[in-house]
Amino acid sequence: MNIVLLSGGSGKRLWPLSNDIRSKQFIKIFKTPEGERESMVQRVYRQIKKIDGDAKVTIATSKTQVSAIHNQLGESVGISVEPCRRDTFPAIALATAYLHDVQGVGEDESVVVCPVDPYVNDDYFKALRRLDAQAAKGEANLVLMGIEPTHPSEKYGYIIPKSTDETSFVSTFKEKPDVETAKRYIAQGALWNGGVFAYRLGYVLRKAHELIDFTDYEDLFAKYDTLTKISFDYAVVEREDKIQVQRFSGEWKDIGTWNTLTEAMDEPVLGNAVLDRCENVYVVNELNLPIVCMGLKDVIVSASSDGILVSDAESSSRIKPIVDKLDQQIMFAEKSWGSFRVLDVQPGSMTILATVKAGQHMNYHSHEHRDEVWNIMSGSGRVIVDGMERPVKPGDVITMQAGCRHTILADTELKVLELQLGREISVHDKRKFELEY
Amino acid sequence: MNIVLLSGGSGKRLWPLSNDIRSKQFIKIFKTPEGERESMVQRVYRQIKKIDGDAKVTIATSKTQVSAIHNQLGESVGISVEPCRRDTFPAIALATAYLHDVQGVGEDESVVVCPVDPYVNDDYFKALRRLDAQAAKGEANLVLMGIEPTHPSEKYGYIIPKSTDETSFVSTFKEKPDVETAKRYIAQGALWNGGVFAYRLGYVLRKAHELIDFTDYEDLFAKYDTLTKISFDYAVVEREDKIQVQRFSGEWKDIGTWNTLTEAMDEPVLGNAVLDRCENVYVVNELNLPIVCMGLKDVIVSASSDGILVSDAESSSRIKPIVDKLDQQIMFAEKSWGSFRVLDVQPGSMTILATVKAGQHMNYHSHEHRDEVWNIMSGSGRVIVDGMERPVKPGDVITMQAGCRHTILADTELKVLELQLGREISVHDKRKFELEY
Repeated sequence: MNIVLLSGGSGKRLWPLSNDIRSKQFIKIFKTPEGERESMVQRVYRQIKKIDGDAKVTIATSKTQVSAIHNQLGESVGISVEPCRRDTFPAIALATAYLHDVQGVGEDESVVVCPVDPYVNDDYFKALRRLDAQAAKGEANLVLMGIEPTHPSEKYGYIIPKSTDETSFVSTFKEKPDVETAKRYIAQGALWNGGVFAYRLGYVLRKAHELIDFTDYEDLFAKYDTLTKISFDYAVVEREDKIQVQRFSGEWKDIGTWNTLTEAMDEPVLGNAVLDRCENVYVVNELNLPIVCMGLKDVIVSASSDGILVSDAESSSRIKPIVDKLDQQIMFAEKSWGSFRVLDVQPGSMTILATVKAGQHMNYHSHEHRDEVWNIMSGSGRVIVDGMERPVKPGDVITMQAGCRHTILADTELKVLELQLGREISVHDKRKFELEY
Repeated sequence: MNIVLLSGGSGKRLWPLSNDIRSKQFIKIFKTPEGERESMVQRVYRQIKKIDGDAKVTIATSKTQVSAIHNQLGESVGISVEPCRRDTFPAIALATAYLHDVQGVGEDESVVVCPVDPYVNDDYFKALRRLDAQAAKGEANLVLMGIEPTHPSEKYGYIIPKSTDETSFVSTFKEKPDVETAKRYIAQGALWNGGVFAYRLGYVLRKAHELIDFTDYEDLFAKYDTLTKISFDYAVVEREDKIQVQRFSGEWKDIGTWNTLTEAMDEPVLGNAVLDRCENVYVVNELNLPIVCMGLKDVIVSASSDGILVSDAESSSRIKPIVDKLDQQIMFAEKSWGSFRVLDVQPGSMTILATVKAGQHMNYHSHEHRDEVWNIMSGSGRVIVDGMERPVKPGDVITMQAGCRHTILADTELKVLELQLGREISVHDKRKFELEY
């Protein structure tokens, strides 16, 4: 099975766990059957591989997520990198061209597309295989998954099938309705449109060439920023007559808000927290500090390096505009070489804890407006400062004046305490160089 | 006026703001008329000095609070240091001997004793002057403040006066009653015993000599740890016949729990926090992270380097046993030379931000089991390492191996990032030396 997982943009709806550079799909909020913590993207990937060990998984995403994806899924997963955000039609066209030109998938092979963040069980992935098999038959150009509604939701578009068969041609599509309209649709046998569908590769490639002037994947990639923002639903689905829907009645949760996320949690507390006489209280604590909750009901508490949220369950869906107003510094980020965490900010200085993974290294870079001091906390490796390489071990100190080129290479995992000193400390004050060695 | 402020022990009832080494009276939770933040002890001291600029203030407290008191009140305040905790009779006896032998207060002068942590306004301090004046008259050996009850509280002892006059002899004392009994007391004209009283110095000094075998202040100090724990109420007040009470009907709050503390706050938020559609919600945030509260009612949120509390207002009084169970590392402390904050703890390392006040210096010390690295972040001063002194400025790095003696002296306020490296990192691993220079 060829499967494209659409890994959407960053967002603040799960603040303080998600932010401008850290998307909800990478938060390790679930548990594997072995009791390890895993993220949405890890869960979905594990579930796919369980149902189809040979599945060729490609993640369609933006540049900013590439490090996190490799950190969480390893190097073997395919990634179709969108140079910028251009909505789902360009993204699916690019991923399809990537499958064809880079991965060598044939035009007659079918491809399944689904979001990276549903909270589902194995039934869902079995349904994806049926979707894949149905697309392969070629009866229709597109085969959609139609999710059996559990309530008259206003959050989803609806698909009206022509029959009540498990697989049926589509009669029509309906935009997100109000509750009363939704009730009428459901009475007509309507299904939710969860943005999951399958097609034969050649079909979408032809649609792409119809709408976009390009030769191959590389060309499409190069001109990606010139493309018009348009959704796949609008550009393709709603204009297609030969379109089928397959019913899916298994468990399906769309984890977009704190309220739905906590419903999917296996236990009320993740991280260091004590609950005393609490009812329906969930805590996700990424800080190294205990949280004590007493006498609360229907409350969500979450703490990370970005901040602390305390919200009643209902209100948590209103978080975005409130958090948008916070003037936030990025306090934690995953990088290709590891991660960093801001420990302290003072006028004229910033203190960072950097973790460099074994075998990885930072870019070779310099800063114009700040000096830096590295204190090696643990691990072993090498630093290169202005071209000079030397080994480092715990307790070693490396001082780098503004302008000096430097990098650190980890032989074993390195933890480095970095003190930045300067009047203007900014992530933008960075010049990168090639490593010559 | 000679006034002794009893500064009680540390406690966790206002966790995470108070802990084993940081008492509630030092938390800067109030505002001065000029809008600066101040602690309970600073507020009380400022209020005393406003009513009586010449008041001789002595704080009776334990060794652990001396640094915090000097940091907050300056060097001119008198401190009677209890070598260990022995309840209020030994503490008041020691403070009285201190006033007599160290401060030169005469036996006929009157002394007022009151707790350091009431939340009161200027009326209270005017009442203390009346108490002082009444004690000076010598009509009674002790003059107590009797607080007009506002409700039949179970939290206080009651004083039954002989008459309804403003100053009256005491008929009898009653232990903390249940609500129904309290109602009966109040119907009889009973007053709350807030632990505030005045006496002529010689009286308590004689009581002390009756009960304890000592010569003078130094001798009492030396044998303090051998004294029996006994309260002043039990040892003196309840056995004294010549005892008067003065009515006080002004504002008086006993700030012992989060619930009463938040009632005394001038505004719902201290620190970085946003409240959205909240009702009766109080936030005290000492962290450098935003707190977002949404849709909450009657909730108290507090965050410090020690942890995060989220509690409904009622439940907050139950905090102590819960927090007692947390295995807590001290994350922040005020020292005589400044303060320190733990930024990070890893296996084999600990990172600390130390602030050394201008003109101050750490003890000259060494560690047996850890190396340390100092990174100067800001300020200027000098370090002494194994007897060698040299000046330091921002960006300088000082490495100290286990066993090496070191200290840092601040010419201007110094901020120092300290990395501790070693398998066993403990506050107890410290040897102090005399500075020879």
